[in-house]
Amino acid sequence: MDIGFIGLGNMGRGMAANLIRAGHRVTVYNRTAEKMTALVQQGATPARTVAEACAGDAVVTMLADDKAVEQVAFGENGILASLRPGATHISSSTISVDLSKKLTSAHHEAGQLYVAAPVLGRPEAATAARLFVIAAGAPQVLDPLTPLFDALGQRTFVVSEHPHTANLVKLSANFLIASVIESLGEAMTLIGKAGVDPLHYIDILTASLFSAPAYQTYGGLIARQDFEPAGFMARLGLKDVQLVLAAAEDLQVPLPVASLLRDRFLALVAAGAGHLDWSAIATLAARDAGGDSDHST
Amino acid sequence: MDIGFIGLGNMGRGMAANLIRAGHRVTVYNRTAEKMTALVQQGATPARTVAEACAGDAVVTMLADDKAVEQVAFGENGILASLRPGATHISSSTISVDLSKKLTSAHHEAGQLYVAAPVLGRPEAATAARLFVIAAGAPQVLDPLTPLFDALGQRTFVVSEHPHTANLVKLSANFLIASVIESLGEAMTLIGKAGVDPLHYIDILTASLFSAPAYQTYGGLIARQDFEPAGFMARLGLKDVQLVLAAAEDLQVPLPVASLLRDRFLALVAAGAGHLDWSAIATLAARDAGGDSDHST
Amino acid sequence: MDIGFIGLGNMGRGMAANLIRAGHRVTVYNRTAEKMTALVQQGATPARTVAEACAGDAVVTMLADDKAVEQVAFGENGILASLRPGATHISSSTISVDLSKKLTSAHHEAGQLYVAAPVLGRPEAATAARLFVIAAGAPQVLDPLTPLFDALGQRTFVVSEHPHTANLVKLSANFLIASVIESLGEAMTLIGKAGVDPLHYIDILTASLFSAPAYQTYGGLIARQDFEPAGFMARLGLKDVQLVLAAAEDLQVPLPVASLLRDRFLALVAAGAGHLDWSAIATLAARDAGGDSDHST
Amino acid sequence: MDIGFIGLGNMGRGMAANLIRAGHRVTVYNRTAEKMTALVQQGATPARTVAEACAGDAVVTMLADDKAVEQVAFGENGILASLRPGATHISSSTISVDLSKKLTSAHHEAGQLYVAAPVLGRPEAATAARLFVIAAGAPQVLDPLTPLFDALGQRTFVVSEHPHTANLVKLSANFLIASVIESLGEAMTLIGKAGVDPLHYIDILTASLFSAPAYQTYGGLIARQDFEPAGFMARLGLKDVQLVLAAAEDLQVPLPVASLLRDRFLALVAAGAGHLDWSAIATLAARDAGGDSDHST
Repeated sequence: MDIGFIGLGNMGRGMAANLIRAGHRVTVYNRTAEKMTALVQQGATPARTVAEACAGDAVVTMLADDKAVEQVAFGENGILASLRPGATHISSSTISVDLSKKLTSAHHEAGQLYVAAPVLGRPEAATAARLFVIAAGAPQVLDPLTPLFDALGQRTFVVSEHPHTANLVKLSANFLIASVIESLGEAMTLIGKAGVDPLHYIDILTASLFSAPAYQTYGGLIARQDFEPAGFMARLGLKDVQLVLAAAEDLQVPLPVASLLRDRFLALVAAGAGHLDWSAIATLAARDAGGDSDHST
Repeated sequence: MDIGFIGLGNMGRGMAANLIRAGHRVTVYNRTAEKMTALVQQGATPARTVAEACAGDAVVTMLADDKAVEQVAFGENGILASLRPGATHISSSTISVDLSKKLTSAHHEAGQLYVAAPVLGRPEAATAARLFVIAAGAPQVLDPLTPLFDALGQRTFVVSEHPHTANLVKLSANFLIASVIESLGEAMTLIGKAGVDPLHYIDILTASLFSAPAYQTYGGLIARQDFEPAGFMARLGLKDVQLVLAAAEDLQVPLPVASLLRDRFLALVAAGAGHLDWSAIATLAARDAGGDSDHST
Repeated sequence: MDIGFIGLGNMGRGMAANLIRAGHRVTVYNRTAEKMTALVQQGATPARTVAEACAGDAVVTMLADDKAVEQVAFGENGILASLRPGATHISSSTISVDLSKKLTSAHHEAGQLYVAAPVLGRPEAATAARLFVIAAGAPQVLDPLTPLFDALGQRTFVVSEHPHTANLVKLSANFLIASVIESLGEAMTLIGKAGVDPLHYIDILTASLFSAPAYQTYGGLIARQDFEPAGFMARLGLKDVQLVLAAAEDLQVPLPVASLLRDRFLALVAAGAGHLDWSAIATLAARDAGGDSDHST
Repeated sequence: MDIGFIGLGNMGRGMAANLIRAGHRVTVYNRTAEKMTALVQQGATPARTVAEACAGDAVVTMLADDKAVEQVAFGENGILASLRPGATHISSSTISVDLSKKLTSAHHEAGQLYVAAPVLGRPEAATAARLFVIAAGAPQVLDPLTPLFDALGQRTFVVSEHPHTANLVKLSANFLIASVIESLGEAMTLIGKAGVDPLHYIDILTASLFSAPAYQTYGGLIARQDFEPAGFMARLGLKDVQLVLAAAEDLQVPLPVASLLRDRFLALVAAGAGHLDWSAIATLAARDAGGDSDHST
């Protein structure tokens, strides 16, 4: 397939490389052009504009937030203005349910196709093609994309025919991870104050009932106080919790744990620590127990 | 070894059977005598009193709560009065940190040995000898007990020399499970209201970042609304959250997620649903979103 | 003074009448024209358009929410397009801090003046000219408006030179009222379940440490379960808590009690009870304690 | 009347003095004897033991906590052992609902009378006989005590025939005050970060909808950061919130605001600031917003 790829950050880079490796013709675009260099060496064609990345069968967007996607999609010479009728916009960014609905209508009106395909996994998984793809859209649009998804991840889950439900599932998964972080932060503060070694504690948990990546990854980061450089920044964690709360508000669903998480992330960002890994909210439980939470390093 | 076993409930039954199967001489005691019958057929000796179950090298207690353990330990002709010097009380019940400290001192003063060895796992795991044993106590006391622990579970973790820390770790694990239930309840209400199938959702989670027993077991129960008969009753969940909060209070550790869980369990019990599986707190998130939470079946 | 008044709801009606009574020339505008009739009989001039209400020295807006104010202010032939240079827009609606900032800039650029003057008090107080006016704006703009504010309320407080701070103070006061409602709801559920009479309880509180209108008004409504017709609807309470949380998010201030209130209002609205008085969130505390909270009347 | 008075702390001192002033014969007892000197000069008879203070018609206890009351009531030569049949124990301390129930039965069995008469107000109000007395007990026991209550406070409220309900109402009032403190702390952090002067803000609140002592007293303390010396220490605030939560647990009433307050007080005590006035929990809201909360003075 002939694919455009817009957004070459920590995640997008690895994903685009895997599409090239799978034999697709990939045209890459990134606002900061130097990020394209490595991929061009791997065989990608560099695009000078968003429009140039929209000339093929499909274009993937993997951008930081709603604002970035809105600009690229609705902006002058953006995706909506450039994609040919019948071509597909594959939106892999973690965006709001609202924006995904807006993109669904806009592409429909423009005679273009739209699917949401956000991914689960950190940058290492993107590089290793070990992501999980959460896809939603019309079956006839999704089916031909199977080889692309297979190139990006270890498994694809189709959620429903409505693209925005994939975004909701992705946001809910991030909410679940954040709630694991908070609970681990509280539990580790407790057992730590009783003299139990936090690393040993994480060994016990992950060898028994909590043998899942979420516990292994974040339990380790918290036990080692290893928050910098961030795999996923606290300020992005705040953004995602805000998006899940906004979606829940629209559906009239109170989420008390998400409310608590929002307050935690807000406190971390207010303390000037929004650049740390989002697992650093665990330091707030420690601080509330009389410990230190010095983020001034 | 010559072992007494006190408390033949859902968990204790399977544990005692596995000790017999491993070749130990087991004397069983249960307040309701008929529960001993099956084990006697498997080779156990029935005891008519607590004291009779305390004649060997060690006695295991696997009882419902602090009150039951206090009665059996400190009561007339109880364990403290009956165990011979140098013999060991292995406390496997989920009891308070405070009571475990009290037992440590009392057995020490009586010239007896005491270790805490609470277990992780539901009744099925107890029967299948697939429990995880969380042990704490002096190394010279714990070491000779290794074969016993091996007969009960798939793996033993030694937490520290202080018995009560094993109880704290066990309680903290129950807190983590309860927080998984609450978060899943919130997330599943959200995606369910958006039209995503809850069972499919749990498949996605457990096939990706949340591939742990806690998510599989409770995700399934919540998706199927399968709360009766209870694997672990909500009223016991309330008790355990109260115990973890009490221990945290002593250590001056605020646990906001545990506070929220306490209020959830309390609401469930107040609604007359304390006999349901503790995963039924997930129905409260659904109710708060305008759904039904009829527990009147 | 020659004043336009836009928005003749429960609050605006009484306020406009008091301006007429104080001898000002008042031109009224309301989307639903029949609401103007009574005021015209009292001496007001009816306007057929927003623009017609903007011909004088000042125009007061007293509308339901941000959307209504945005339309009237920024819409075609709206206030910004119609007000003469040097004339003042007095914004008395409970709107977001953000919109108030936007209005400040827009009026400044248009050579017009802008002050925020939201009010504290329910419709009865508006009718009786017993409101409290929370004003903010440049002193030279506010000073000439003193007679207007005196006609509307029993006292005016000038918060700062920045109009949006008055909106923040107003929102924070609504947050404080909502937190009184929630706390009273919890306390009254508690003492009620112990057999103490709720009306007597409110007498005790308001005769001692809580002798304030907020406790008298809402304590009485809760004790009598008197939620319909609403003095202030729960769905507007939800909106205001959302606005206070949004303002707090911008200022990076976590507000855990406001988060809890948001979840309460959301649950009430999800239960189909958004039309009840906002004090009806007290029924949720009662419901969580095993009581009924039937909103199906 | 011939009255014993046990417990001459900040509150008891003023109360005992007012009983003397009203013409009663007062015998005082305090563990630390020097605290009796001033009252003896005012006309009190010093008792060397609890028993000596129990020789009259009634004995008032005004002590710090359950433990102190238990010791004085149930201890050797305590009130139960010393009070003559038909004489009355007036329990004015802020104690648990449970202990009040226990005292009701114990005095009943001993042929003695018991009423609960906790008070609302800080030490200044005790001195000025401006307390509010919350009384509960059998009418025939309470009626003759009216002159005593009149001497202590500005008004007496009779809650019910069951003494423990007065303790519950008192605890619930402390819960309401603590929730005012927390809400004010959050609101003042918010408006303060927006540049509004906190003292002016409190003026606005207390001149309008929040014209109650609770807002005046605590709003002022928070605005001036005046937490030392404490009128009521944070560690006692923690105790009272724990007591209200314990009573609510027995009645199966979730109190989410009280849960939040418990975590706040626990955090303050964990930070080594349990000796500050309980209004210092407001500093935690400020800290969570990125401000300082240095308690190291």
